[in-house]
Amino acid sequence: MKAVTIVESQIEIREHPDPEPAKGELLVRVRAAGINAADLMQVQGFYPAPPGSPADIPGMELSGEVAAVGEGVFEFKEGDRVMAIVGGGAQAELALVPERLAMGVPDDVPFPEAGGFPEAFLTAHDALFTQGGVTIGDRVLVHGAAGGVGSAGVQLAAAAGAHVTASVRNDRLWDAVARLGAAEVVAHDDFAERGPFDVVLELVGGSNMAGNLAALNRLGRIVVIGVAGGGAQTDIDLLTVMGKRAVITGSTLRARPLEDKALVTKRAEAHAVPLLANGSVRVLVEQTFPLKEAAAAYERFREGGKLGKIVLVVP
Amino acid sequence: MKAVTIVESQIEIREHPDPEPAKGELLVRVRAAGINAADLMQVQGFYPAPPGSPADIPGMELSGEVAAVGEGVFEFKEGDRVMAIVGGGAQAELALVPERLAMGVPDDVPFPEAGGFPEAFLTAHDALFTQGGVTIGDRVLVHGAAGGVGSAGVQLAAAAGAHVTASVRNDRLWDAVARLGAAEVVAHDDFAERGPFDVVLELVGGSNMAGNLAALNRLGRIVVIGVAGGGAQTDIDLLTVMGKRAVITGSTLRARPLEDKALVTKRAEAHAVPLLANGSVRVLVEQTFPLKEAAAAYERFREGGKLGKIVLVVP
Repeated sequence: MKAVTIVESQIEIREHPDPEPAKGELLVRVRAAGINAADLMQVQGFYPAPPGSPADIPGMELSGEVAAVGEGVFEFKEGDRVMAIVGGGAQAELALVPERLAMGVPDDVPFPEAGGFPEAFLTAHDALFTQGGVTIGDRVLVHGAAGGVGSAGVQLAAAAGAHVTASVRNDRLWDAVARLGAAEVVAHDDFAERGPFDVVLELVGGSNMAGNLAALNRLGRIVVIGVAGGGAQTDIDLLTVMGKRAVITGSTLRARPLEDKALVTKRAEAHAVPLLANGSVRVLVEQTFPLKEAAAAYERFREGGKLGKIVLVVP
Repeated sequence: MKAVTIVESQIEIREHPDPEPAKGELLVRVRAAGINAADLMQVQGFYPAPPGSPADIPGMELSGEVAAVGEGVFEFKEGDRVMAIVGGGAQAELALVPERLAMGVPDDVPFPEAGGFPEAFLTAHDALFTQGGVTIGDRVLVHGAAGGVGSAGVQLAAAAGAHVTASVRNDRLWDAVARLGAAEVVAHDDFAERGPFDVVLELVGGSNMAGNLAALNRLGRIVVIGVAGGGAQTDIDLLTVMGKRAVITGSTLRARPLEDKALVTKRAEAHAVPLLANGSVRVLVEQTFPLKEAAAAYERFREGGKLGKIVLVVP
């Protein structure tokens, strides 16, 4: 099979042996695979794939058709349309998916959207609901709301009956983010006076934290899942944390053990995939590129200013 | 009645009108009232009493006998031995206590211990269990473990089957803290290599936070309830928070609404008071002072290096 391959901190398309599904695994003929910030970090050598995933083939999410199943697979069969997060190796013609991580793709959802769904929507769902406890009537602030995870977060929070304030750096994208269900779209540096917020989804990083804490409601939760734009270091005033009884937490999805990823998948499958199926939420795809043009796709990802995902497709 | 009274950032004993219990309130003849750091802050003008509490009489906890009850009080009657946190006004011969905040004092527990129980044990119980989720087998780090809240925290965590590491600045107190059930007692600056800890009870402040995060286990929780020793400002590395899926939170008890204090009281009454009754935990009283010597008691409190509580007693 052909696959995007990391060679000396660059990507190329190279030929690899076809993988074979072991017990409990699906072999998936990949039809689409989203690009994520972690892929870029992996290419640069900062974020190695977890054990058991291909070390030199990036890609943390995919959609496609089941090409074969390993022993002990009961929920899926050859030909089923599936999507999943994986530890790596998604940007290839074939990829292995543990059955517990696979979700069925709703009938009306095309593969490119499905290939950009898992990472963004599982991350956003886990951060907002499992970690942040978002519920009806909460005021939710989503930073970096035009990106993949951000646009998923705006839609999921709005669908849950929250009042969403979205911060977006690029003002050309404000109208589009408002159409996702944000009650209010503001500049990246114009949120601190807009509170009080019950939950903050932090996708930018440390530079936002003082404003987040200032704008936080009593018992508010700040969930940090990205620091690429604003840095990892930040100054916190603990008396504010105490006075507001604030919670600051954060996570990554990729580093978690399989059983945890399976739980995140099952929760999103129950609560987010039905919204995808009925059109309440959608995967914003800024642009698709054929797998063989992966280098151009990565370049476009790096440029930023996107509305949603950059997705590789396999014709 | 006589009461400790704040006069121009000093304390004196002054005469006040006897308070009268309104609906749902107990009038308590105070027998003992612990001194807390917040009292000192209030005397200095930094921490005003919440609305409805006497502005000029400090004291956030007490024990005593019910002297009279207001309309609609059903759980307590005249003569009952009670203890409670209050919004203020405890350091007086008489004090008002909302019935929902009162706990019965176990038979064998003398008033001075009971008067130093509520603030420390409710704070420690809420922080460790309700906020921190401490459970059997957890590794728990308690900073400032020789103080009132710290010594309560060590005992409660140990009683819950946790493995407790206690940090104590004053090495003369190490043996005493070990006897409270700490598996390990270390210097205040010698904890960062002792992890991984599942829960950190932070009573010192910002200067500990880098070490706390470094020593934290995956999914660990840092609960900040005091910053007097180490300052409020601290630098946090958000990538560590994300990688460990850490939770940083904090609280104060006094600022909470009555219904919240009542819930904290009922949880501690159910889970901590029985341990006090059967001797599994005890209130460490470093020294008692008669109410009329409150100024000397406050001075002793300020000196630090205490094992447990400074308690005012009313003969």
